[in-house]
Amino acid sequence: MKKIGIVGATGYTGVELLRFLVNHPNIEITMVTSRANADSRVDAMFPNLRGYLDLEFVAPDIDTLAECDLVFFATPNGIAMQNTAALIEAGVKVIDLAADFRIKDVDVWQEWYGMTHACPELLSSAVYGLPEINREQIKNADVVANPGCYPTAVTLGLLPLLKSGCIELDDIIADTKSGVSGAGRKANVGTLLCEAGESFKAYAVSGHRHQPEIAQTLSTVTGEDVGLTFLPHLVPMIRGIEASLYVKKSATDCDLNTLYQEFYKNEPFVDVLPAGTPPETRSVRGSNICQISPNQPKHTDRIIILSVIDNLVKGAAGQAVQNMNLMLDFEESTGLKQAALLP
Amino acid sequence: MKKIGIVGATGYTGVELLRFLVNHPNIEITMVTSRANADSRVDAMFPNLRGYLDLEFVAPDIDTLAECDLVFFATPNGIAMQNTAALIEAGVKVIDLAADFRIKDVDVWQEWYGMTHACPELLSSAVYGLPEINREQIKNADVVANPGCYPTAVTLGLLPLLKSGCIELDDIIADTKSGVSGAGRKANVGTLLCEAGESFKAYAVSGHRHQPEIAQTLSTVTGEDVGLTFLPHLVPMIRGIEASLYVKKSATDCDLNTLYQEFYKNEPFVDVLPAGTPPETRSVRGSNICQISPNQPKHTDRIIILSVIDNLVKGAAGQAVQNMNLMLDFEESTGLKQAALLP
Amino acid sequence: MKKIGIVGATGYTGVELLRFLVNHPNIEITMVTSRANADSRVDAMFPNLRGYLDLEFVAPDIDTLAECDLVFFATPNGIAMQNTAALIEAGVKVIDLAADFRIKDVDVWQEWYGMTHACPELLSSAVYGLPEINREQIKNADVVANPGCYPTAVTLGLLPLLKSGCIELDDIIADTKSGVSGAGRKANVGTLLCEAGESFKAYAVSGHRHQPEIAQTLSTVTGEDVGLTFLPHLVPMIRGIEASLYVKKSATDCDLNTLYQEFYKNEPFVDVLPAGTPPETRSVRGSNICQISPNQPKHTDRIIILSVIDNLVKGAAGQAVQNMNLMLDFEESTGLKQAALLP
Amino acid sequence: MKKIGIVGATGYTGVELLRFLVNHPNIEITMVTSRANADSRVDAMFPNLRGYLDLEFVAPDIDTLAECDLVFFATPNGIAMQNTAALIEAGVKVIDLAADFRIKDVDVWQEWYGMTHACPELLSSAVYGLPEINREQIKNADVVANPGCYPTAVTLGLLPLLKSGCIELDDIIADTKSGVSGAGRKANVGTLLCEAGESFKAYAVSGHRHQPEIAQTLSTVTGEDVGLTFLPHLVPMIRGIEASLYVKKSATDCDLNTLYQEFYKNEPFVDVLPAGTPPETRSVRGSNICQISPNQPKHTDRIIILSVIDNLVKGAAGQAVQNMNLMLDFEESTGLKQAALLP
Repeated sequence: MKKIGIVGATGYTGVELLRFLVNHPNIEITMVTSRANADSRVDAMFPNLRGYLDLEFVAPDIDTLAECDLVFFATPNGIAMQNTAALIEAGVKVIDLAADFRIKDVDVWQEWYGMTHACPELLSSAVYGLPEINREQIKNADVVANPGCYPTAVTLGLLPLLKSGCIELDDIIADTKSGVSGAGRKANVGTLLCEAGESFKAYAVSGHRHQPEIAQTLSTVTGEDVGLTFLPHLVPMIRGIEASLYVKKSATDCDLNTLYQEFYKNEPFVDVLPAGTPPETRSVRGSNICQISPNQPKHTDRIIILSVIDNLVKGAAGQAVQNMNLMLDFEESTGLKQAALLP
Repeated sequence: MKKIGIVGATGYTGVELLRFLVNHPNIEITMVTSRANADSRVDAMFPNLRGYLDLEFVAPDIDTLAECDLVFFATPNGIAMQNTAALIEAGVKVIDLAADFRIKDVDVWQEWYGMTHACPELLSSAVYGLPEINREQIKNADVVANPGCYPTAVTLGLLPLLKSGCIELDDIIADTKSGVSGAGRKANVGTLLCEAGESFKAYAVSGHRHQPEIAQTLSTVTGEDVGLTFLPHLVPMIRGIEASLYVKKSATDCDLNTLYQEFYKNEPFVDVLPAGTPPETRSVRGSNICQISPNQPKHTDRIIILSVIDNLVKGAAGQAVQNMNLMLDFEESTGLKQAALLP
Repeated sequence: MKKIGIVGATGYTGVELLRFLVNHPNIEITMVTSRANADSRVDAMFPNLRGYLDLEFVAPDIDTLAECDLVFFATPNGIAMQNTAALIEAGVKVIDLAADFRIKDVDVWQEWYGMTHACPELLSSAVYGLPEINREQIKNADVVANPGCYPTAVTLGLLPLLKSGCIELDDIIADTKSGVSGAGRKANVGTLLCEAGESFKAYAVSGHRHQPEIAQTLSTVTGEDVGLTFLPHLVPMIRGIEASLYVKKSATDCDLNTLYQEFYKNEPFVDVLPAGTPPETRSVRGSNICQISPNQPKHTDRIIILSVIDNLVKGAAGQAVQNMNLMLDFEESTGLKQAALLP
Repeated sequence: MKKIGIVGATGYTGVELLRFLVNHPNIEITMVTSRANADSRVDAMFPNLRGYLDLEFVAPDIDTLAECDLVFFATPNGIAMQNTAALIEAGVKVIDLAADFRIKDVDVWQEWYGMTHACPELLSSAVYGLPEINREQIKNADVVANPGCYPTAVTLGLLPLLKSGCIELDDIIADTKSGVSGAGRKANVGTLLCEAGESFKAYAVSGHRHQPEIAQTLSTVTGEDVGLTFLPHLVPMIRGIEASLYVKKSATDCDLNTLYQEFYKNEPFVDVLPAGTPPETRSVRGSNICQISPNQPKHTDRIIILSVIDNLVKGAAGQAVQNMNLMLDFEESTGLKQAALLP
């Protein structure tokens, strides 16, 4: 049994990590940290875990964390980078669910995240934890940067097309929508039920931190700059991301459905839907699946790719467990084989 | 006091029409028809009208409708077209909230709506009831085709740009989202709370009836064919439409904010927001306002226009009352001066 | 035109007050205060008021407030009591939408509200602003304590029975449910969409501040102590309160429907539903109506009274406007004649 | 591997049964029937099952069902009773998730369900499938009547008190609230998102079918008639039931917390919360747990018991799997050990 620690598990990605890990057959959760909640029971904060997890929060401490085999950081941006070097030194693997290791270019990171990076020397060896593109590197990584939720939905939606030659790369539009849990579990007027409920809006129109993250992946995969217009919206629901991707066809024709089915045929967590079936976020609620539907409507030259995930699962905690399985040499889908909760 | 009849007021546009009309100072509601509900009180179906409307539904009858000054059809597609000629003959003005008179080309209409048009000879004289483009014609119209909800949000969002010369017209993308009331008040599994709640999806990916309606307006305004990619989505909320419009800049520069403020400065029901303020659907809930925010993000060459309406008000019943005011020579905003319900 | 000031209009009762007052024909809003938001536009915080209110927030100042004819306090508990004496002295009438003047017994108040009362000498002359029991006193009051939301729904539901002799007074059970807006517009984890959405729970099981307020009214009306079990619940919706009231029949029989219809026949804002029609909160959304359904099910000796209001309207801002109308000698329903927003 | 058939799996209890059964280690699903959907894939209707269930619906046929070891009826009332006798004859065990076998008195059943019972001779041997009272009988039953959702929440909430002597049995009040999925997956105006969303109401005030079911259990357990006032309400959410139970104390005192902790200490699916912790429906969403909080508020003589379940799980499909485990001699919680989905 591998020993697992979770730093900062008082948010939604934290409780979701715990939901998967309490039933994982190959690991034991040895510590769950929260400075503010030290000495109170984890299941007092999250009553869904009653009977599944008999632990109290403890204050984070690098020496005790060093006894783990792997540590998840389910913390705000800027925390993992302060502790990762010491943990690696101690032989502990690290998965950061925040953004500290997602951007390779430290200047870009510092511009978008508004702080000085604490360990830029780790950026090059940190692996971007999207198994569908980096499976082998993840297996050998010390530090995995768990991808953002929007980047996961958008990237998986675009991947088969990127090197196909069937599309132009200079004008991809990603209109994305997220449930409110993407904003986290913190006191905030804007995400009150009475503010975010029964309403819909775009946000971050002038620029969102997931823009450079997606752009970096797209240009890494294609080897060239990709023109991306990215706009997120807030949906009055708890979980789920939908990405509607508008891609311009090139002169080369391709059979969309065949392309996608082939590309993802061996992926355990990407599911290409039959033609004419727009994916619904509820069909992946609570599950680690990304459902994708590629479409070529008659009235337009644009290809429309629709992609859905649960932002807390394939967009965060589930993908983190998938990465852990790869890093610790478990079967990749261990602990993640639950059908989505519908309705 | 003008006499007003409403045919088929058992749906959401019907009850919304009644909500505005019961307090309108210049009209009286003389009949509300419903074959299925004849002889039962209107406020038994819609208890929000208790104390405001002392009427029973009556079976529709062309002779008694002919005693009205103006008749609204809040019916499914295909009903108004069977009765309009007789009413006009009798000197009654008609506003159809359904789609019977929206498309000028009868072949296009018949293809998208799957039925034979009953009075194609009226299509040329029927006026498309978007006051922001057809105010004068509406004043003199016998038949007004009240616009669809998506077309209202999209067209108002694009209008200032269409003749500005600042954009390319061959590749406009309209990613639109609607609350569930757009699907109407009919027994249907897909719009149950347990199906449409807590979920988000695209629909009608292969083509939606509002596509040719929008395309017709855009080409009428610009005098040329406009390339439009249109995709609707279903939002887990009751009211509201948001349109995110991606428009390609041309070589000509323009000051977006000035363009929009100027264009709409005299419009009573279009409100251009200050820069950097994405509109929320709740800010127009229950009101006849369209709020628009034009944006030029730094990371892309695309202009992004955001437009919100209440689909049942500016997208249906409120716009119909606005049209009635014009047709009956009342002040245009009579009965429509209620602030939106927030939260 | 009477001059009206609103202290602390940055919450939900504040914006709702403004929604009604901007269209009120007999008053003008001369100042809206907020220390934290001074010098920013009111409609920047509440975009539904754009075009209806051309004011900025100002810092509260007793001298300028003294120029108003009437001042509303839409503030947290404990603010109005610090300013009311000075305003009365200056000839200004006061309506407190918080709880400072609701409880006559200062010891009870201080126990439940956990602070020392700043002007206990005003408690006896302050009038409890439920027009259905205190209409004449309200007309002559200097200070009106606007009732709590639960107390309004529960008291109006019980009033006709209290002096009827048809019920026992020692064991009344009030199971009440409220939308989340009752908790106000403040940053708070418990009322986030992701915490309060898609869930239902009781709260304040050990005792809620509205318990002594209701008990006081019931005993005032009946002249004896009334045994009341009161339990509130949180409903995953924005607006609305429903009270299910279980009352034990006495030996005296009564015709429930006749009793209620007679009792409320002249009340402009209480609507007794036909037998067999459970009220829905949405039928009063945005309106000042309380809808009540009295029932005597066959399977029990308990009478069940069902009562619904919009907590922000008849339970707060609408009732405050009704009280203002009485205090300033306007027609009681001025500015309050809007049908509820359904759906 | 036992062979399991499911009749009528096109509703919410059906898809929920499948969600649990696809991962159950001791059974295989051999047939899923639906006359209307025969020959279409189950996962085309329920995309959350893609990758978990490779079956098409088949038309129900008694001969092929007879090859199963156990058959679930997830059908409307009145279907199971027509097929159960033949299945038992063939040696197949039956669990009916509808109401056909819940009421022992056939006259009472026929009065409430409005049809003639097809096999009244089976009523006496059918076992009411609440393991917390009938565990041993369930193990040996041929036919199990899976309890209703409200009866499960109410009965589990009251059980420890019923024989304690601490309460009066003549005036128990059960104010219950359910998410909309309790109404099933059928086209119906009343449960549209736009009708049931953002609103709260009582229903079935004159009497609900779960009233006689609960009353039967309470009197069976206590050996005497129990006075029960039962009122259900509809909550604008998908899943969850909360029951607030008001019970009158007798002269005998008891320690509520100890009573409940002791009573349920060995139950795998009943969880008594620490004092002062009102249960939330979301804490059991998707799980088979019933969480209960017993309270004695100071301001009243009434004991208040709060009980929550997921109506589709412990109130339907989960409890059915629990019963199957008992009937087929598997460990009782097999396949049911998933933590609830929060948020």
